[in-house]
Amino acid sequence: MHAYRSHTCAQLTKENVGETVRLAGWVHRVRDHGGVLFIDLRDHYGVTQVLCDPDSPVFSEVEKVRSEWCIRIDGTVKARDESLVNPKLPTGAIEVYIRDMEVLGAAGELPLMVFGDQDYPEETRLKYRYLDLRREAMQQNMTLRSDVVASIRKRMWAKDFREYQTPIITASSPEGARDFLVPSRLHPGKFYALPQAPQQFKQLIMVSGFDKYFQIAPCFRDEDPRADRSPTDFYQLDLEMSFVTQQDVFDTVSPVIAGVFEEFGGGRKVDAPETWPQIPYAEAALKYGTDKPDLRNPIEMQVVSEHFAGSGFAIFAKLLEQEGTEIRAIPAPTGGSRKFCDRMNAFAQKEGLPGMGYIFWRDGENGMEAAGPLAKNIGPERTEAIRQQLGLNVGDAAFFLGGKPKTFEAVAGRARTVIGEELGLTDQNRFAFAWIVDFPIYEKDAETGEIDFEHNPFSMPQGGMEALQGDPLAVKGYQYDLACNGYELVSGAIRNHKPEVMLKAFEIAGYGEDEVKARFGGLYTAFSYGAPPHGGCAAGIDRIVMLLADEVNLREVVMFPMNQRAEDLMMGAPSLPTNEQMRELALRVVKEE
Amino acid sequence: MHAYRSHTCAQLTKENVGETVRLAGWVHRVRDHGGVLFIDLRDHYGVTQVLCDPDSPVFSEVEKVRSEWCIRIDGTVKARDESLVNPKLPTGAIEVYIRDMEVLGAAGELPLMVFGDQDYPEETRLKYRYLDLRREAMQQNMTLRSDVVASIRKRMWAKDFREYQTPIITASSPEGARDFLVPSRLHPGKFYALPQAPQQFKQLIMVSGFDKYFQIAPCFRDEDPRADRSPTDFYQLDLEMSFVTQQDVFDTVSPVIAGVFEEFGGGRKVDAPETWPQIPYAEAALKYGTDKPDLRNPIEMQVVSEHFAGSGFAIFAKLLEQEGTEIRAIPAPTGGSRKFCDRMNAFAQKEGLPGMGYIFWRDGENGMEAAGPLAKNIGPERTEAIRQQLGLNVGDAAFFLGGKPKTFEAVAGRARTVIGEELGLTDQNRFAFAWIVDFPIYEKDAETGEIDFEHNPFSMPQGGMEALQGDPLAVKGYQYDLACNGYELVSGAIRNHKPEVMLKAFEIAGYGEDEVKARFGGLYTAFSYGAPPHGGCAAGIDRIVMLLADEVNLREVVMFPMNQRAEDLMMGAPSLPTNEQMRELALRVVKEE
Repeated sequence: MHAYRSHTCAQLTKENVGETVRLAGWVHRVRDHGGVLFIDLRDHYGVTQVLCDPDSPVFSEVEKVRSEWCIRIDGTVKARDESLVNPKLPTGAIEVYIRDMEVLGAAGELPLMVFGDQDYPEETRLKYRYLDLRREAMQQNMTLRSDVVASIRKRMWAKDFREYQTPIITASSPEGARDFLVPSRLHPGKFYALPQAPQQFKQLIMVSGFDKYFQIAPCFRDEDPRADRSPTDFYQLDLEMSFVTQQDVFDTVSPVIAGVFEEFGGGRKVDAPETWPQIPYAEAALKYGTDKPDLRNPIEMQVVSEHFAGSGFAIFAKLLEQEGTEIRAIPAPTGGSRKFCDRMNAFAQKEGLPGMGYIFWRDGENGMEAAGPLAKNIGPERTEAIRQQLGLNVGDAAFFLGGKPKTFEAVAGRARTVIGEELGLTDQNRFAFAWIVDFPIYEKDAETGEIDFEHNPFSMPQGGMEALQGDPLAVKGYQYDLACNGYELVSGAIRNHKPEVMLKAFEIAGYGEDEVKARFGGLYTAFSYGAPPHGGCAAGIDRIVMLLADEVNLREVVMFPMNQRAEDLMMGAPSLPTNEQMRELALRVVKEE
Repeated sequence: MHAYRSHTCAQLTKENVGETVRLAGWVHRVRDHGGVLFIDLRDHYGVTQVLCDPDSPVFSEVEKVRSEWCIRIDGTVKARDESLVNPKLPTGAIEVYIRDMEVLGAAGELPLMVFGDQDYPEETRLKYRYLDLRREAMQQNMTLRSDVVASIRKRMWAKDFREYQTPIITASSPEGARDFLVPSRLHPGKFYALPQAPQQFKQLIMVSGFDKYFQIAPCFRDEDPRADRSPTDFYQLDLEMSFVTQQDVFDTVSPVIAGVFEEFGGGRKVDAPETWPQIPYAEAALKYGTDKPDLRNPIEMQVVSEHFAGSGFAIFAKLLEQEGTEIRAIPAPTGGSRKFCDRMNAFAQKEGLPGMGYIFWRDGENGMEAAGPLAKNIGPERTEAIRQQLGLNVGDAAFFLGGKPKTFEAVAGRARTVIGEELGLTDQNRFAFAWIVDFPIYEKDAETGEIDFEHNPFSMPQGGMEALQGDPLAVKGYQYDLACNGYELVSGAIRNHKPEVMLKAFEIAGYGEDEVKARFGGLYTAFSYGAPPHGGCAAGIDRIVMLLADEVNLREVVMFPMNQRAEDLMMGAPSLPTNEQMRELALRVVKEE
């Protein structure tokens, strides 16, 4: 017989009754039923009930085992009494009578129970992660993550992509976030950087003629911690293709993402890729107040400025006299009660706005009646015109926000989300996707008035060189995101592969040729040796798994995450270097003054 | 029609004759045949001959293209004349007459030609890696590497392993090599380290109850560069299993490795895993002079001390009077000529030994005759006894080395290799594997006389705690390597998962409990909460691909390798940090005195 097990803890059934078997696993829990000891023995695959009474030669040893001891037992498989069969457990028809036992690994007093679903502080869970990970939910999340990544790989291979690994200890790649640096021992005073993303390398792979690349790529950003973001390293599905248009990238990626959500979505509805809308950035901002709209929520905002211009609602009427201002409405079907409207108004105030005006429609003495101070101020005709534009009816409401869109758009988006959820309009059992397209290449810094890249300096401007001759703020890029249920799942672009267009694009953002060559010299030079048109995208693995596992904290879907202060309490990182290490690296720590 | 291509450059056949097609790719070479321009248009998939004469509306533009320009052409597929069909090329039956052309990416003067097989200095190849990678051999090596890694993953999944990702920015893991450090911005003065291997994490995954883990894992070692080693990051197939014996690990890994070599070995013979010998370390040292023997070479060394003890060959006879000395023979079938023997003797001298004595057997006047000074010194009886022990005959030779084995073993091993290769005994078309087992846990430092770990401090000593009570140098570990054709391909162990045995093992090597807890605290503590017996191994991806691709330099099988000084000349790494970066990290570079 094998040294440790003849079966896993999920394998034994009625078929095995009478057999002598060997099992190994952890003591999930022990119960003493009148001198008979019942142990739920657990391994990665399942649980088997094993038992022991004073007739067993090892009874006195079995008496000593405690929760989470790792043991090996030999025993005889017995059928359970009909009345004791547990149909929910694969091994629920049998139990194993213990005839021999070996303690493989004893356990001290536990800082965290594996059995049961008690909550523990995050620091405890991370410090004793190996206990936390034994819990059923974590075992499921980790296998889900592994299976999702495997499925993504299979789907990419099926599309004739090959995975190529790019360097991890490499050059700084200024892409917006902060680099992690790695001091060089062989070149004292110089530093490598860990890649924020393999952006430049995957583009170089295209210039090298490889046509289709993907990688489940580790990425590194020295960012301040957040619940949904790792403070150190994370993984993305990174892909790039040559000789493609934006639509080709969509046609490639959409079925991969949809397939993964179908496979692991647990029956939740997944919108078919053919139906995923392509929404221009400007339209998304207007209708949803965000570039990552949650389309499970049917609410779409509308511009209703004309109904307020010159109206009796002085605040909006005056506002509209300023350039660039707008009044937008958030329709709220079934939200037509003063209580609900007041609550939403309070929400807007909590978000830092003066409030949200509202109208709601109810049954009055003379039929339908518009209620709320706003309706009174602008009068019945304008109110009715608004109702008709928004397609609302008795029992519905509408909220109004005004000003320069940038000042209220984000709050409007959040209000839309809250309204959709509170009114039960948002389908919780659905994954709704949309490609957001036509992102502007540039934005104007609100304070300095300077033009800078809005997103990613590597995107091809729509219209190429010609477009860059005009108003920079009007230039759109072949740049896109995939939104799912209010999250950005994928981000990508068709790249700017023409050196002269690249130089011009950077010039507009205030970077001279020298600086482009200094910061992106490898890529820039490569583009002058026959670069193909290419594009691609990257999808966050953590985000995908979080959505599928229905978790909101990244640390539930990562095996060994850092805590919120970017520390690993289990392994003791970061830690003080030795003097020898510092000497080898020619570094000295500067004491705080 | 698609913006860039209707077909790849490997797709068009006679079936397509008459069709209007669109192709995109690189100008591999241009030939001018009496005013008709022939271009080999190349993409990742193949080459198609496209041509143009002055009747084409774009002739004057086509005249301008040069090697490695990236172009798009529209044209008509024509059958080639029977006499011009190239059966070696998938597209060899057709050519495409160019009717329209677009330059997608022009190329300047090339520092490195893609067409042809001219050699270039490594610095040129690495600086313009994107051109180097376009060459056929590199395209093949990179796709081979990608396919090997994909195949490994599929084989591991088929064995019910799941891939789990372990942290990259983590704690120092003192495992023999030097760590790369990463300064922490949030904790000034403290450093993370990049993992030399996910050793501790994979063991923690076992303690977490996951049963079977693998990862194509990035590893980081700050080592001085060497042709067959990356100076920064490299990948290994890392795996670990719970509740297993050493044989279970072999049974798992052997078919994976054998399968990969079968699949990608290009018809070279692959020894069947059932036939892979398990050779104890001490036996390998004796027979092959190395712990990574090349078993394609049939030569096995033998101890022949008894034939020299008290013999007329004074050097060996005296040597044998000292404790711990031995005489070993390297049999050399078919090596029986003075010329060959002298050459081998010279080889040993070049390797720093005084020389290698030899005997060779030839046809003499009275039948078989033993030649060489050694034979004369020890006389015919001893000579004949040696011949019989080694099973040699007329036309064969034997070489002799003596002393304490450690002093000549390695040279003997290299001599065995050279002899096998020079005599054509080593089958070049074969992959020969052997598990090397029973490594000693400890070694004695030759200078200080102190006991230290020979290999890896995490291995379980054979005999457990009891064995550790005796002579440390006699303790063997459940520790193993897989050798293939003279290289170490895999290394692994059954781990020491018992905290008390771990403490004892470290104590023998001079580490106190406090130091164990300080250096391996995460793992040590984890072991006190119910650790399962577990073991595994790691296989070098680069090494596997190098063997399959028949390359001896790592840089031929890595997409973007560093140069020998650990620099990336293409991307400019390492580089000087900005003052702001240094300030954020609270670091200062110490100027050399």
